[in-house]
Amino acid sequence: MSLFESAELGHKVDDATYARRVKKLRADLLDAQYDLKQSGAFAVLVLINGLDGAGKSETVNLFNEWMDPRHIETRAFPAPSDEARQRPPLWRYWQALPPRGKIGIFFGNWYTDPIVERAMRKSERSALPRGINDIQHLEKMLADEGVLLIKYWFHLSEKGQEKRLRKLAKNPRTAWRVTSHDWKLFKRYKPYVSAAERILRETDSAHAPWTLIDGSDENYRELAAGEHLLAQLKRRLADAAAAESTSAAKNGRKTAVKPATSLDRRNVLNSLDMSKHLSDRKYGRELEKWQGQLNLLARHPKFRERSAVLVFEGMDAAGKGGAIRRVTAALDARHYRNIPIAAPTEEERAQPYLWRFWRHLPGHGQIAIFDRSWYGRVLVERVEGFCSEADWMRAYSEINDFERQLVDSGTVISKFWLSVSADEQLRRFKEREETRFKRFKITPDDWRNRDKWPSYEVAVCDMVDRTSTDIAPWHLIAADDKNHARIAILKTVCECLESAL
Amino acid sequence: MSLFESAELGHKVDDATYARRVKKLRADLLDAQYDLKQSGAFAVLVLINGLDGAGKSETVNLFNEWMDPRHIETRAFPAPSDEARQRPPLWRYWQALPPRGKIGIFFGNWYTDPIVERAMRKSERSALPRGINDIQHLEKMLADEGVLLIKYWFHLSEKGQEKRLRKLAKNPRTAWRVTSHDWKLFKRYKPYVSAAERILRETDSAHAPWTLIDGSDENYRELAAGEHLLAQLKRRLADAAAAESTSAAKNGRKTAVKPATSLDRRNVLNSLDMSKHLSDRKYGRELEKWQGQLNLLARHPKFRERSAVLVFEGMDAAGKGGAIRRVTAALDARHYRNIPIAAPTEEERAQPYLWRFWRHLPGHGQIAIFDRSWYGRVLVERVEGFCSEADWMRAYSEINDFERQLVDSGTVISKFWLSVSADEQLRRFKEREETRFKRFKITPDDWRNRDKWPSYEVAVCDMVDRTSTDIAPWHLIAADDKNHARIAILKTVCECLESAL
Repeated sequence: MSLFESAELGHKVDDATYARRVKKLRADLLDAQYDLKQSGAFAVLVLINGLDGAGKSETVNLFNEWMDPRHIETRAFPAPSDEARQRPPLWRYWQALPPRGKIGIFFGNWYTDPIVERAMRKSERSALPRGINDIQHLEKMLADEGVLLIKYWFHLSEKGQEKRLRKLAKNPRTAWRVTSHDWKLFKRYKPYVSAAERILRETDSAHAPWTLIDGSDENYRELAAGEHLLAQLKRRLADAAAAESTSAAKNGRKTAVKPATSLDRRNVLNSLDMSKHLSDRKYGRELEKWQGQLNLLARHPKFRERSAVLVFEGMDAAGKGGAIRRVTAALDARHYRNIPIAAPTEEERAQPYLWRFWRHLPGHGQIAIFDRSWYGRVLVERVEGFCSEADWMRAYSEINDFERQLVDSGTVISKFWLSVSADEQLRRFKEREETRFKRFKITPDDWRNRDKWPSYEVAVCDMVDRTSTDIAPWHLIAADDKNHARIAILKTVCECLESAL
Repeated sequence: MSLFESAELGHKVDDATYARRVKKLRADLLDAQYDLKQSGAFAVLVLINGLDGAGKSETVNLFNEWMDPRHIETRAFPAPSDEARQRPPLWRYWQALPPRGKIGIFFGNWYTDPIVERAMRKSERSALPRGINDIQHLEKMLADEGVLLIKYWFHLSEKGQEKRLRKLAKNPRTAWRVTSHDWKLFKRYKPYVSAAERILRETDSAHAPWTLIDGSDENYRELAAGEHLLAQLKRRLADAAAAESTSAAKNGRKTAVKPATSLDRRNVLNSLDMSKHLSDRKYGRELEKWQGQLNLLARHPKFRERSAVLVFEGMDAAGKGGAIRRVTAALDARHYRNIPIAAPTEEERAQPYLWRFWRHLPGHGQIAIFDRSWYGRVLVERVEGFCSEADWMRAYSEINDFERQLVDSGTVISKFWLSVSADEQLRRFKEREETRFKRFKITPDDWRNRDKWPSYEVAVCDMVDRTSTDIAPWHLIAADDKNHARIAILKTVCECLESAL
């Protein structure tokens, strides 16, 4: 039995019933939308998919008419811009995500291409189109971030679609909507529907279920979509209100990390050879060599079609800033951007966690240098209890997924953990207290973080275990000797670029 | 005597002097940068221009090396992206403006094309290149917004440039930097320098002066640029600190608007015929007619190369929301975006006033609908005293300039003031208090604003007088009768689009 059978039953609603119910529906939708805006508790994302002529654009326009269009962000995704083509395929959807309190409608979305491609046999026959996995991960992440995800598939039987297309084409006011592409797709009705069915099944989940809507009767279609949307909004608003009232209890569950002791107390950090040292003379020679090499690589013709992301993490005073400056000194300022990560802005806080990193992804020929990064979630946020255990636990796979998308789109990633010993950190703190450069003045926060050293160590080891992947491995750098650390980093960046170009 | 003569004197600094002064300079620059970041008082924008080989890219790299590159945003502007090409030429610079507390370096900027075009005689011989006027206005606006604007011209004599280019071309490590374009430009040294001279003179002002730097000696060039930058930073930081301490007095100067009484008390608002009325039956017919018309126009093939901006302003309960919904109901949700303007976000507050509108400008084939707009500055901000008189006074010309750039780039602008009488507003307020739609509940703010009616009336009349231009006139709509207002608006939008396409 086909997934779509129940959407081909020819559901109908008579005009009197429609008129009665739609009046109440509209008032209730407006109320729910207002409650959503007031609470700002979550974002709503509605994906509109289905067969041409089944009422997709009518429904989008209806939602905008029934509710307050000022708080709905409707986005269509025609051919990607040149900026989008230089980044992972999901980038343009990330840019368009609605913030908390708003409803986003994606008309044309991440399902459009996979279904068409599969129906047209552009992708392999048996395998699911590449990208379905990315979609599953994206939707899981959105749901975990509290986004209410609603996915509609507007359906018609083969005869129903033909009838509808002919009707639209006949009416001079709607004829423009039926293109030759639509007829071409219609001729492949069966493969199209079977491609859709398979993809819908693969992406139907508790957190992002599909809702099938029979598009053959206008009254039915409008009521079905509207009342479904309302029910989802109301349920989630009730949940949010309930969660609000128990948020105190919930905060309690944000347990800070407890240092674990392994049997032999050995870990990736304390196994590093911290005695590595490079004399100033050797350093000078090596610096010139690797900076020159890096400069050449950044200007390599092949790099004009690639990009790079460098991630610097490390305890306070581990030497991230100094190392970054040795890298940037080798580059033309037109070709890199520094992205220091501090507390998120208001706009960033209204979005899923990774949003603020997606917005800074480099275009072709560009190097983005992150001074602290998305790893904040599994480091400071975990240690300080700024987020729940569930949040930082899922961050590992979200991050791996994010980095894989980057690599797939041609980005070279180099991630550095600058490991400084507690003694050396103390020495540098004291040194900084005596320096005249104001920017080096250390804050009470620095001393406080130092007290949490053992917790940070656990968090770092877990991070390395879980996110050091083949495509984006961590480079642990013994950083007690600045000369050694800087050269090791420059050399690694060069090697990463070299092997990619 | 040429503007550049003093930059061709062959300034020199010996190595010992350089070494001594550069050490102090670097420390001081870092301190100043840190103070800037801490105070967040203003943004710094450094424009890098000059002859090839005169040390432009060296200086950009140097600034990044001497200061903390995490708080410098260096931007180059190669060929505009397709998104940029659909918007006014200055759009991409607006997107890249540094926020308060940061230093932005524009390497390649709004001077690049005008100078090259003029030197190559692409633009008319005698007239200044189109765009110089826009530049003057932009820089004035930036200065008024508190941006510290620093413009460098790096210079070389004709012989000096030839020597430098040959030297760069000879060294295998720098040969890549000398392109055939550079030699082509060098062959036009005299016209290039004369074009630059004229444009520099035209754009040299107290608020955005040019600084000429002799590029022939590296030591001199580096010290001259660095010490100049430092002096500018320090002076402005001192000014900002002084302003801070007198800010209480300054706030006092934010005088709210006083209603003026003209001799006959007549004005554009009370001259409107408020008795206009449209029966429901006629309204139904007209609505269908004009919505159909608007739908056709939005799908007009020529509109695919154009865009539209609709602005809705009016007192509370004037019917903006309802009118907007009658417009959007005629459009495909893929082709318009609603932009409700409320309080600015944190990121928006760190930028010049108009920034938050520039970021929402529509691309080709798109209609942006602003529910309240940039006119907030000369309406609510003026009436409530949220900004100083100087700020709202200059807003008129800034807005006219902004709208002219939009029109020049092919955008159709329709601006509506929905005029509701005090009696009708009162009636609607009372009606709203009884309605069950939560979103219509009125707030104490609404009643408070009502008390300021006379002040708003003055502000509106001034706004219309000063910003109703030939290219973007205000349409004053008698809005006591909703039917009449909605049809008048739809009809006007259609007429504006029709005459443009």
